[in-house]
Amino acid sequence: MTERLVVIGGDAGGMAAASGVRRARPDLEIVVLEKGVRTSYAACGIPYHVSGEVDDVESLVARAPEVFRAKQDIDVRLRHEAMAIDLGARTVEARDLEGGETVTLGFDQLMIGTGARPIAPPWSGIGQPGVHLVHTLADASAIAALATDVEGRRVAVVGGGYIGVEMAEAFVQRGARVTVYDMAPQLLRNLDPDMAALVGDAAEGHGIELRLGQPVVDVEPGRVIGQQDSHEADLIVLGLGVTPNGELAGAAGLTTGVRGAISVDDHQRTSAEGVYAAGDCCESHHRVTGQPTWIALGTVANKAARVAGINLGGGDARFPGVLGTAITRLFDTEIARTGLTEVEALAAGFDPVATTVRASTRAHYFPGNGPVHVKLVHDRGDRRLLGGQIVGAPGAGKRIDTIATALWAEMSVDDLVYLDLAYAPPFSPVWDPVNTAARQAE
Amino acid sequence: MTERLVVIGGDAGGMAAASGVRRARPDLEIVVLEKGVRTSYAACGIPYHVSGEVDDVESLVARAPEVFRAKQDIDVRLRHEAMAIDLGARTVEARDLEGGETVTLGFDQLMIGTGARPIAPPWSGIGQPGVHLVHTLADASAIAALATDVEGRRVAVVGGGYIGVEMAEAFVQRGARVTVYDMAPQLLRNLDPDMAALVGDAAEGHGIELRLGQPVVDVEPGRVIGQQDSHEADLIVLGLGVTPNGELAGAAGLTTGVRGAISVDDHQRTSAEGVYAAGDCCESHHRVTGQPTWIALGTVANKAARVAGINLGGGDARFPGVLGTAITRLFDTEIARTGLTEVEALAAGFDPVATTVRASTRAHYFPGNGPVHVKLVHDRGDRRLLGGQIVGAPGAGKRIDTIATALWAEMSVDDLVYLDLAYAPPFSPVWDPVNTAARQAE
Repeated sequence: MTERLVVIGGDAGGMAAASGVRRARPDLEIVVLEKGVRTSYAACGIPYHVSGEVDDVESLVARAPEVFRAKQDIDVRLRHEAMAIDLGARTVEARDLEGGETVTLGFDQLMIGTGARPIAPPWSGIGQPGVHLVHTLADASAIAALATDVEGRRVAVVGGGYIGVEMAEAFVQRGARVTVYDMAPQLLRNLDPDMAALVGDAAEGHGIELRLGQPVVDVEPGRVIGQQDSHEADLIVLGLGVTPNGELAGAAGLTTGVRGAISVDDHQRTSAEGVYAAGDCCESHHRVTGQPTWIALGTVANKAARVAGINLGGGDARFPGVLGTAITRLFDTEIARTGLTEVEALAAGFDPVATTVRASTRAHYFPGNGPVHVKLVHDRGDRRLLGGQIVGAPGAGKRIDTIATALWAEMSVDDLVYLDLAYAPPFSPVWDPVNTAARQAE
Repeated sequence: MTERLVVIGGDAGGMAAASGVRRARPDLEIVVLEKGVRTSYAACGIPYHVSGEVDDVESLVARAPEVFRAKQDIDVRLRHEAMAIDLGARTVEARDLEGGETVTLGFDQLMIGTGARPIAPPWSGIGQPGVHLVHTLADASAIAALATDVEGRRVAVVGGGYIGVEMAEAFVQRGARVTVYDMAPQLLRNLDPDMAALVGDAAEGHGIELRLGQPVVDVEPGRVIGQQDSHEADLIVLGLGVTPNGELAGAAGLTTGVRGAISVDDHQRTSAEGVYAAGDCCESHHRVTGQPTWIALGTVANKAARVAGINLGGGDARFPGVLGTAITRLFDTEIARTGLTEVEALAAGFDPVATTVRASTRAHYFPGNGPVHVKLVHDRGDRRLLGGQIVGAPGAGKRIDTIATALWAEMSVDDLVYLDLAYAPPFSPVWDPVNTAARQAE
């Protein structure tokens, strides 16, 4: 009998792994169970479809199911939801969401890429017209259709994380009057408060109203309800973050950890033989803390899935872990972070020292030069670099990669002082802002 | 008697060191001898003044002599040329180029920052109208004045290095018909031929005529003369590179090395007690080859000068060396390099393997996405990363810093595969081009 790999989840984690296995194992039967109607789409592109910058929602699909079927002989079954995994019998029970019947599929190897889902509190308006989650391409299309007609209208974005900030920008670009709500006293909770304040200033500078530090207790169509007061809104978008889809794996007896995400080793192996996981449904190893973490980002998902695919295909790949590097923009403000913030470093038991500088993206005399704030966090004891944050003008953000690479190599903050970074007037001052921050830390 | 530091050269190397010393030693007498009429100007900004992007040539002056005098009590003597150093007597003989008299200055410590000068072959036209070197701000002003009136006229740029490429762009922006001459068969000799070819394509795409692989044997006003033929030109600009001003130090008996540049240790000490050097006049330690090298870049000068300043001031700083990181642009093509090219790696005795990929600067669906070519060079034996080159669309170039940081940390090419670099659709594909190149190298 042909050996069979079953893949649960047809997004980045599952499909990248499936493709990797196929390259190594042309003989294997590969079945992908995907409960939605798409494979491999770029959810991170949704805000830019809403803003109108990315015209065609279909362009967010990296590769269509037919392509996987035709070119890689991968049996992609859309609208099939995995309901249960039996590790003893080595079977997956799946329901055909169209036909309604349930099938039981045996597997020799199993790959879990169930991803994450948006957090949706038990609010009365969720699922009603004018109240939208941001997750699927169907959400994207629905919101984008409304976005063409929001000029001058009130849009409430509940949640001030990456998606919230990006959706706020998108609606401002569409001419709406936008309010962002978050129970935290700042936007972007994975920045330190001082750096997040710069983002808040940028948001307000673009006319975005911020209602921070005030929990939303309910939303209903046309209204966002807080503890003390409520506010009218013509359109409400919820960007409250995501939570890992680890329940199916957990119910089957696989070990789960941080926030219920599936625990894996550095080969993306779960606690059961022949069962792998990758993507937003599972944990990662944090290279700075040395602890498991849960980071739902496309970069992590794709990289971990590559490792899973190689190993499922009989190879030997190791996923070296993550730093939590992330970037976004709010109009012309670029925002990036890597490693630990000062707050996170304290919580992780380090003795953090933070250094923040304001420098320039380009030579001081060069047109288009703008401010960039760089914050470095290092440990007081051994001066090891722990993390970095950047908020600044165009050209600022991707400098985070310098800090990420330094973290990866476990460099000290002092190693960054003389680091030989690229300079020419259109690109940088002669001391790159990262050098400047490290000098200040000295 | 007050202890005296004499600094020879008032540009980046000398002035950055002098400022550093002053912070540590308020008591010291500091005398700077500068043969020109400026201190600390950004020569790298000259092409952008010629193009008109940087309006005011004075904005290229980082800090004027009066500021050094008033704020730091540094006795800056302009138009004073150091003629000889007597290491036994510990004196410098300097000529006042205005008055003509010669003074002898005793020193306790000496800092040499004599910089570099443009290479000027014994060509008949040099010094005549319509034939220009690019070095001082006076050159900048003279060329910029002519540049406002070159529309439709023929400008010859002799030398296809960084300055040549930047001047060619500047004159195209001014509407001139530009030809670049170089005896090498490519532009930018510190790129590998394959990467330089991409720059050549970009140049030709902007209407720049290239006459490569053909030595220029003479220039005269109005004419560039090759071995076989000659070409008319309304304006001729020479960008043939620079050579270190190491002669004064060499004549005094200080050890010199690569191309006559002054040899220094990792504290910027020359071979004589109490005599330091930094900037374009001296060698640097190359971190990849482990050998002395000579790299005339503002980044290196400023960093080495900081080290010299700290040490002259009684501190203990070490300059950890250079990678030869550099960046420029030709219109919308960004060009960057770090470490060793394939050609340089071979010459240095490595067994280089080169990997080149063409990737995208942004998510494939994101507006403004453009191509980026990344070339990584690693050693076949231990897979250690040796260098990188990038040529690509806006956003491509500063990615070289990721490779530079990896080189600094002596990472292997394989360490770059899963490196946690920042991704969001406006900034990068989910696999950053640097990751993609490393995957290819795997």
